[in-house]
Amino acid sequence: MNFSTPEAAEAAFYAAFETRNLDAMMAVWASDDSIACIHPMAAPLDGRTAVAAGWHSMFEAAGQFRVQVEIAHEIREATQVLRIVREYLVIGQETEPRPPILATNLYRKEGESWHMVLHHASPLQIGGTPPARMPPVVLH
Amino acid sequence: MNFSTPEAAEAAFYAAFETRNLDAMMAVWASDDSIACIHPMAAPLDGRTAVAAGWHSMFEAAGQFRVQVEIAHEIREATQVLRIVREYLVIGQETEPRPPILATNLYRKEGESWHMVLHHASPLQIGGTPPARMPPVVLH
Repeated sequence: MNFSTPEAAEAAFYAAFETRNLDAMMAVWASDDSIACIHPMAAPLDGRTAVAAGWHSMFEAAGQFRVQVEIAHEIREATQVLRIVREYLVIGQETEPRPPILATNLYRKEGESWHMVLHHASPLQIGGTPPARMPPVVLH
Repeated sequence: MNFSTPEAAEAAFYAAFETRNLDAMMAVWASDDSIACIHPMAAPLDGRTAVAAGWHSMFEAAGQFRVQVEIAHEIREATQVLRIVREYLVIGQETEPRPPILATNLYRKEGESWHMVLHHASPLQIGGTPPARMPPVVLH
């Protein structure tokens, strides 16, 4: 598969995700073992074999869903593009999306085609104060 | 500040984090507004002003802590290096680290110096099955 822009690769990524098509999913990823995929709350999966196994498990376990994607931030270089997106999943017959997942997607140009090298997805808490990385100062 | 390697920039990043030194922290980040910082569970902060404000709030709220960093994955290009690390925070007088935070750190070479352009930190659930991104198949 040839993806002429990072956007084309990203569209193919989310189409493969939604249709739970492992071959289409792995065609989006770069061909070498430098790739890494982090599913929400999970440990990093490194290299094509582990990344494919992760998607396989997820696709086996998943029911019907749709995914809507919204760009939040972008960093464009000549041969590397980073896109931070919000993913909104609409499950089964539900009409409202679940709370968004935040994903950092990194694409690399290989010859004339763009491929994913990183997907780091994590929960995004909506409203309220996010849990701090460290506890507040103890006042004496 | 000049950081001759991505590792030097990363060491300075975690030193600034641990000492809660905002000037040292912002010296690690790239000088342009393409930068983005995602604290655990929080929305992305875009550009130097928002990134600095995020660290300022965190440093104001934080007590004493140490941070240990362990590399999990790396992707090296000529002018861009991505490092996925596990961050272990040891709070105050505690002797055991808290459960790790997973961070994707992206560095860009600007002239002769490496600077951070992305920090995406998220919780990592240890043990058990991570929460799925979508619910399991409904069996009929």
